[in-house]
Amino acid sequence: MLEALKQEVYEANMQLPELGLVTFTWGNVSGIDREKGLFVIKPSGVDYDALKPEDLVVVNLKGEVVEGEMNPSSDTPTHTYLYNHFPNIGGIVHTHSPWAVSFAAAKMDISAMNTTHADTFFGDVPAADALTQEEIEADYEGNTGKTIVKTFNERGLDYEAVPAALVSQHGPFAWGPTPAKAVYNSKVLEVVAEEDFHTMELTHQSSELPQYLLDKHYYRKHGANAYYGQNNAHSKDHAARS
Amino acid sequence: MLEALKQEVYEANMQLPELGLVTFTWGNVSGIDREKGLFVIKPSGVDYDALKPEDLVVVNLKGEVVEGEMNPSSDTPTHTYLYNHFPNIGGIVHTHSPWAVSFAAAKMDISAMNTTHADTFFGDVPAADALTQEEIEADYEGNTGKTIVKTFNERGLDYEAVPAALVSQHGPFAWGPTPAKAVYNSKVLEVVAEEDFHTMELTHQSSELPQYLLDKHYYRKHGANAYYGQNNAHSKDHAARS
Amino acid sequence: MLEALKQEVYEANMQLPELGLVTFTWGNVSGIDREKGLFVIKPSGVDYDALKPEDLVVVNLKGEVVEGEMNPSSDTPTHTYLYNHFPNIGGIVHTHSPWAVSFAAAKMDISAMNTTHADTFFGDVPAADALTQEEIEADYEGNTGKTIVKTFNERGLDYEAVPAALVSQHGPFAWGPTPAKAVYNSKVLEVVAEEDFHTMELTHQSSELPQYLLDKHYYRKHGANAYYGQNNAHSKDHAARS
Amino acid sequence: MLEALKQEVYEANMQLPELGLVTFTWGNVSGIDREKGLFVIKPSGVDYDALKPEDLVVVNLKGEVVEGEMNPSSDTPTHTYLYNHFPNIGGIVHTHSPWAVSFAAAKMDISAMNTTHADTFFGDVPAADALTQEEIEADYEGNTGKTIVKTFNERGLDYEAVPAALVSQHGPFAWGPTPAKAVYNSKVLEVVAEEDFHTMELTHQSSELPQYLLDKHYYRKHGANAYYGQNNAHSKDHAARS
Repeated sequence: MLEALKQEVYEANMQLPELGLVTFTWGNVSGIDREKGLFVIKPSGVDYDALKPEDLVVVNLKGEVVEGEMNPSSDTPTHTYLYNHFPNIGGIVHTHSPWAVSFAAAKMDISAMNTTHADTFFGDVPAADALTQEEIEADYEGNTGKTIVKTFNERGLDYEAVPAALVSQHGPFAWGPTPAKAVYNSKVLEVVAEEDFHTMELTHQSSELPQYLLDKHYYRKHGANAYYGQNNAHSKDHAARS
Repeated sequence: MLEALKQEVYEANMQLPELGLVTFTWGNVSGIDREKGLFVIKPSGVDYDALKPEDLVVVNLKGEVVEGEMNPSSDTPTHTYLYNHFPNIGGIVHTHSPWAVSFAAAKMDISAMNTTHADTFFGDVPAADALTQEEIEADYEGNTGKTIVKTFNERGLDYEAVPAALVSQHGPFAWGPTPAKAVYNSKVLEVVAEEDFHTMELTHQSSELPQYLLDKHYYRKHGANAYYGQNNAHSKDHAARS
Repeated sequence: MLEALKQEVYEANMQLPELGLVTFTWGNVSGIDREKGLFVIKPSGVDYDALKPEDLVVVNLKGEVVEGEMNPSSDTPTHTYLYNHFPNIGGIVHTHSPWAVSFAAAKMDISAMNTTHADTFFGDVPAADALTQEEIEADYEGNTGKTIVKTFNERGLDYEAVPAALVSQHGPFAWGPTPAKAVYNSKVLEVVAEEDFHTMELTHQSSELPQYLLDKHYYRKHGANAYYGQNNAHSKDHAARS
Repeated sequence: MLEALKQEVYEANMQLPELGLVTFTWGNVSGIDREKGLFVIKPSGVDYDALKPEDLVVVNLKGEVVEGEMNPSSDTPTHTYLYNHFPNIGGIVHTHSPWAVSFAAAKMDISAMNTTHADTFFGDVPAADALTQEEIEADYEGNTGKTIVKTFNERGLDYEAVPAALVSQHGPFAWGPTPAKAVYNSKVLEVVAEEDFHTMELTHQSSELPQYLLDKHYYRKHGANAYYGQNNAHSKDHAARS
């Protein structure tokens, strides 16, 4: 069942230790088949070097296990919530990558301070509100998804243009059109968190990018007029423009 | 004598350089056979890449060498003291991992600021008092164990729920039900020390976790209602709850 | 066409991940054949582990693609501008190396605070002005080169003696007589950015090198009286002087 | 000539990149044959992966090359000065390791703040005065040795008990009874520099070790009553004492 997706999600999971994003088993990637309404996710607490594609668990959009011998990630209800409320995403990643966790513990956004950020995130990556005692005790992992979605709604953010969030006191979630792209976004978030930290230590002036630079870098890589990379009609033309 | 335990302690020792927790020979792991009242410990000053299981030294709970050609770790009296006063632990680790040492030198606790911490430590990891001149001169390594135990008693801490301590001016000790789990706790301590440092630099507001979040994350992984991982009855059920 | 130069530029590109200067595809190296007025540059958005020498794109000094199946780096107009205005350089590197990016985001020069800096850069590495909205919208990558050249002119800097610059809010560019030397300079910049950050945190006094120490270290490695390394007549003589 | 010493110095040099102490060619190790009054040193500017034992240069205590095709390290006069004034040392290391350089640029000692430091350095590692313009222009590398020796004399430091120094604005030198021990000391210095930096950021109180803890840790590893490691009569006895 969903063998190709399992392979894809397996490979995305294996990227996490390669990119230095996880210690021990502290991360998970899922990927969804939107037509079938089923997603595939890492089993809970399994070492990356022991993980096999067939270990992955298939879950439906009610969060029920449909196939798999193992328990799915304990964060499965968060993934379920996000897939239900962010209809265009195809993959989700959760890690405890240390720079993003440091910002999450401080309940601070990861602001757009440089073009590395703007290439991937069209604005600040928000720190969603910490959960209340009631939310934690009632349905911790489900409400973890809920606080992310609520933050995007309240701030009027586009989840496709800003494909990540911090959960305060906890850590980062990232997503994207595919599991691999979600992992990519997760790595970018960790890199810019580290850079922002050092920029903030260097200068106590505001270091937020102006909107026009954010526009330039984001749309250089995204949308109809993108000209970065090999898969668009604009690149050679643009190179020749100078 | 104790061949299986020697192998287990050997493997736990070899994890220290793999996890980036030691420079040169600056670390040691021991493991205990509670029935026999004997523990096995790394010999003093031996390079990790030269270490063999048969080099490990067997010591009794009076701190006397029972078997072994080599000198045991110079920290053996600390291990002895901790095994005598923390009756449920099965393994102990000492390292000079740099982030934990930085907090130890500052005589500061590693506070519970994020869920990575709460997953393993049910509250702040205490910085035990530095030893007095008299304690150092009388029995340095024994009193190193004593200051840890005293700190746990004075603060009313549960050594099973908070399986690590800093010794001020010196460095971290961690323990657990097995040598491997003690090494795991030692790594978590280093990771959260680094995260706490950066969180504290980012914000000068208190970043301590509320008790209910500490409860949630700690008991998600520990005790009768744990639902993280594969070895409990609660996981699938919980995943399906959302 | 330009096979030897392609091989040289290919090898210089492959140095970037080896030296820890790039994440994903975030960097590019070019090299120029001054006689032919053509330069060779990495294609846009290609993974380093998939890159082959024959993938490199040949571009003329108007920024027009002369040979190559792929789109050249989106930064090609910046390289074009720099080759046109810095006539003695043979190679250019752009990366998003994190310490240099942190200074660029803070719009701060990387000052000459130690001899590691002085060995390579004869003075501060300037943070060029951030581009205006008009400059970004008109010709972003071309104007990125322009702001670097303008900064060197306004401050009276010698681009051969200070072979790198930061573009504010963006990141570092480095250059040199060859592509390999440009990569070397790019790495030195990252190392001294990290050192400067820590020096600035340690002391709030000025830590700028005096001119005479800058002179000593720079000319120990550069120019007619250099005596570092194996390719000059001064070394043995100097060693014997003490 | 001096083949065994060349092999020893070669191996010590090769430890520098393995221990993460050098970037490019920025380091050198030498070792001396005190009976012959000759020392062996790395040639200048040679890549570590191209270095062979027979490339090493033999130099006498006047700093004259006695054997070798290549130019010796440009720091040879510093090594010469130190061998002449520190008669009991057998090896010297110079690196540009980044944490030690950061302290050197700040002209700050690396203070004894933890037992990792005390295990190797019996007190603060001093930042020697920066050289004056006259000293730099007259005999830069020779005077680099001189400022180190002068600092030890003025502060009444024992070069065998504190086997390293920073040269302000420049970087660290370390030494020891053998080239390998000098490299070891060089690594310890880098580790404690990093730890001190973080300790100083955590607390603005004094974090200097008391003398009695310095005594305890230093003499646990050094001198007639040492009981760390395998090569002394005290260890087992001590372990049994607790």
